[in-house]
Amino acid sequence: MKHSMFQWLLILCVTVVLTVSQASATRIDVPRLSPTRGVIREQRPEILKTGSSEEFQTFYYNQTLDHFNYRPESYTKFQQRYVMNFQYWGGPNAPILAYLGAEESIDNDLVGIGFLNYTAPRFKALQVFIEHRYYGQSIPFASREEVMKNASIRGYFSSAQAIADYAQILLHIKKEWHAQHSPVIVIGGSYGGMLASWFRLKYPHVAIGALASSAPILYFDNITLTPPGGYSSVVTKDFKEASKTCYQTIRNSWSVIDDVASQPQGLANLSQKFKTCKPLAKASELKNYLNDLYSEAAQYNQPPEYPVTVICGGIDEAANSSSGNEDDILNKIFAGVAAYEGNEPCYVNPSSNLSETEIGWEWQTCSELVIPIGTGNDTMFPPSPFDLSNFESECKRNYGVPPRPHWITSYYGGHDIKFILQRFGSNIIFSNGLRDPYSSGGVLENISKSIVAVKTKNGSHCLDILTASKTDPQWLEF
Amino acid sequence: MKHSMFQWLLILCVTVVLTVSQASATRIDVPRLSPTRGVIREQRPEILKTGSSEEFQTFYYNQTLDHFNYRPESYTKFQQRYVMNFQYWGGPNAPILAYLGAEESIDNDLVGIGFLNYTAPRFKALQVFIEHRYYGQSIPFASREEVMKNASIRGYFSSAQAIADYAQILLHIKKEWHAQHSPVIVIGGSYGGMLASWFRLKYPHVAIGALASSAPILYFDNITLTPPGGYSSVVTKDFKEASKTCYQTIRNSWSVIDDVASQPQGLANLSQKFKTCKPLAKASELKNYLNDLYSEAAQYNQPPEYPVTVICGGIDEAANSSSGNEDDILNKIFAGVAAYEGNEPCYVNPSSNLSETEIGWEWQTCSELVIPIGTGNDTMFPPSPFDLSNFESECKRNYGVPPRPHWITSYYGGHDIKFILQRFGSNIIFSNGLRDPYSSGGVLENISKSIVAVKTKNGSHCLDILTASKTDPQWLEF
Repeated sequence: MKHSMFQWLLILCVTVVLTVSQASATRIDVPRLSPTRGVIREQRPEILKTGSSEEFQTFYYNQTLDHFNYRPESYTKFQQRYVMNFQYWGGPNAPILAYLGAEESIDNDLVGIGFLNYTAPRFKALQVFIEHRYYGQSIPFASREEVMKNASIRGYFSSAQAIADYAQILLHIKKEWHAQHSPVIVIGGSYGGMLASWFRLKYPHVAIGALASSAPILYFDNITLTPPGGYSSVVTKDFKEASKTCYQTIRNSWSVIDDVASQPQGLANLSQKFKTCKPLAKASELKNYLNDLYSEAAQYNQPPEYPVTVICGGIDEAANSSSGNEDDILNKIFAGVAAYEGNEPCYVNPSSNLSETEIGWEWQTCSELVIPIGTGNDTMFPPSPFDLSNFESECKRNYGVPPRPHWITSYYGGHDIKFILQRFGSNIIFSNGLRDPYSSGGVLENISKSIVAVKTKNGSHCLDILTASKTDPQWLEF
Repeated sequence: MKHSMFQWLLILCVTVVLTVSQASATRIDVPRLSPTRGVIREQRPEILKTGSSEEFQTFYYNQTLDHFNYRPESYTKFQQRYVMNFQYWGGPNAPILAYLGAEESIDNDLVGIGFLNYTAPRFKALQVFIEHRYYGQSIPFASREEVMKNASIRGYFSSAQAIADYAQILLHIKKEWHAQHSPVIVIGGSYGGMLASWFRLKYPHVAIGALASSAPILYFDNITLTPPGGYSSVVTKDFKEASKTCYQTIRNSWSVIDDVASQPQGLANLSQKFKTCKPLAKASELKNYLNDLYSEAAQYNQPPEYPVTVICGGIDEAANSSSGNEDDILNKIFAGVAAYEGNEPCYVNPSSNLSETEIGWEWQTCSELVIPIGTGNDTMFPPSPFDLSNFESECKRNYGVPPRPHWITSYYGGHDIKFILQRFGSNIIFSNGLRDPYSSGGVLENISKSIVAVKTKNGSHCLDILTASKTDPQWLEF
């Protein structure tokens, strides 16, 4: 049976082998997305090797600072990094698979995104990985620290500029390598998946198709009819499916934490119970930490450990104490933390510098990419609807400028997507794992014959494009 | 027989009634487009009335200065003018016809673009005219003069920002008038026609279709396989069709002008012969003027006068002198000038202030919209291929920043348009009059079932969307 390139991508998309993870976790307690975290990867050493470092060649493109403006400053150039692997390329006319970098250095992707390397031989494809502006080595001006402190320089840091960068680099590559007629497929995961689908819509003359993995392009503005609590609903579902008693314990724990915190010496007791690295200043510090932990576990709930199962194992197996119900619940919650985090000297608030992803992503979500994640009434979390007005104030306080919460839907669309795209656009695969809380903002239904949705029941965030692992389950292999 | 809205637009597009003109003429002697000129309109007083001024209501939108940048300055707001006519509107859900302003004040369009007013009753459509940033009353900051002198402020003046403006205003109108489900058709002519087609491609979620009249979207970069002399080839064809002797006289005249100019007192003699307002400083001054004149005449070669016929009438009917062949040719050329310009105290270089269109359009074509108009070998003009390097130097000298000659094709595409758009996009009508020199950069073949080309053999620039005139020929009526 012979498959077209498009069919192959579709097939690969569903079946590609599992591995490590490196996309965004979410802090749902504050209305900002938290960054990419490498924790899952660190726990999984059994990555199957992809291309070796000799096969990757690094290039730098002399990129324009502002594509949409003609002020003299806009002409400033910066060095943008991209990496190519010619190992399987059939030369001019053969396809180009282009991974569009997201909110981190491209170094991680070369190791972590195995999809390109597995797919390239079948199509004799050139592999390209392009780093997103303001991450990794692709930072305009001097140091990242300086850049992110400077309101004028920070202003050029946006998705619209980033996909224009990608267009320029891909056109440059096509020209340099006489590949003007090579079909380009852009590929991305999470935020990078949004970029891939938006790229196909905005630059159809550069990319003939897109694979958007775990791309919550509908988690903006008021697109989804479901309340913005979709994310926390999926986290809740994941925990409930793993263990109903675990889910119930977590659901009961928030009021217990508040209750204990309100007692004399309550915060000190909580600090002791959770072996915090620094004494807790507020109960919300602990609650936010737990929120993040459960969210991250759900987002990356994948083999071999299945972190939701690990946490629930800790919670369900913790011995009851003799000192009463509240204490039991706190013990169980802490047992879940310890099971997930492992044997650490302390928990909850260790000292650490913010990563470039944390710094960059906070800016992006506080300016352009306003993702209104809140918590509805029927989850394991305390209800906390997204408060746009508060969010705007907080961003303005932090950055001097308010976010533009309607810009994403103005520029990229999203409302009535099925109606709008059924006769416009083509060749986009939206792939989602239904255990991924971000799938609640993903495209889960086919829009047209060639704008299609692929769903994996047990898939987690970006699982389909990651590098293979020995522990991949049967359903994920191809 | 019942027509769909789309079919109606198509029908109207071919048949709508003729009138006045107000789009760009071209200076092909220098590699810059020259501006919109109202001369044709001034010669044609018999315009049929469209909507009266009471039916137009003026609004101002608080527009963002830079949509793609988050520097504090980018948040600056300016008042952008738009005008609506509710006379025929059927209310929410009924269509919106939106005219996208081009390189001039919207005032002219309210009178000159009759297409909306003729079409609106059939569809119970709301009419909207939106002014382009930096023209008319829609100028950021204080005065137009100051704005255009300031390199920082001028930098926000681009097509990408302009269509983002249009998206914001149309989304605002839909919200304000509870018309979220009203289909929007964007309409534009010449540069505005390019904007309309690009708008449909970039903002399919805002406009369901576009009518792009006389939009030379393929006159960029190296898109067309024909050399960039396409414009002058059509001018030549127009003159040749009007009169072969006239064409031959013009073709012979350039070397005569050079020859006379190189003689002692040559420039003074030419100045006298052409009754110039100021003495000619260089022969190129006269040649550029003639270039512009022939180009403008060809671009707006429409009833009642048919300016190409007028010029050729002057040329062909001029009496031969007794002083020889060279003098005869100059006499004929001047007779053509006088026939076109009418009885003026002087010709060629009258004192006049540059219009806002001249100033604005020169900047736009010297920064973003680099239209490589040159002259090939087989026209009535002296061969003068477009010289990008010279053009870049000149723009840089004038504005401090060089143009970005590949940006339009990078952002909007254009290369291989048939292949790219055959399975991407929908609902665009490209309409061209084949007498219009700009049709050489237009889309003249159907691309798909709903991206179609409409051609009128005797049509001129934007003729199909202009206000009706009593002198319209039969073939133009509907």
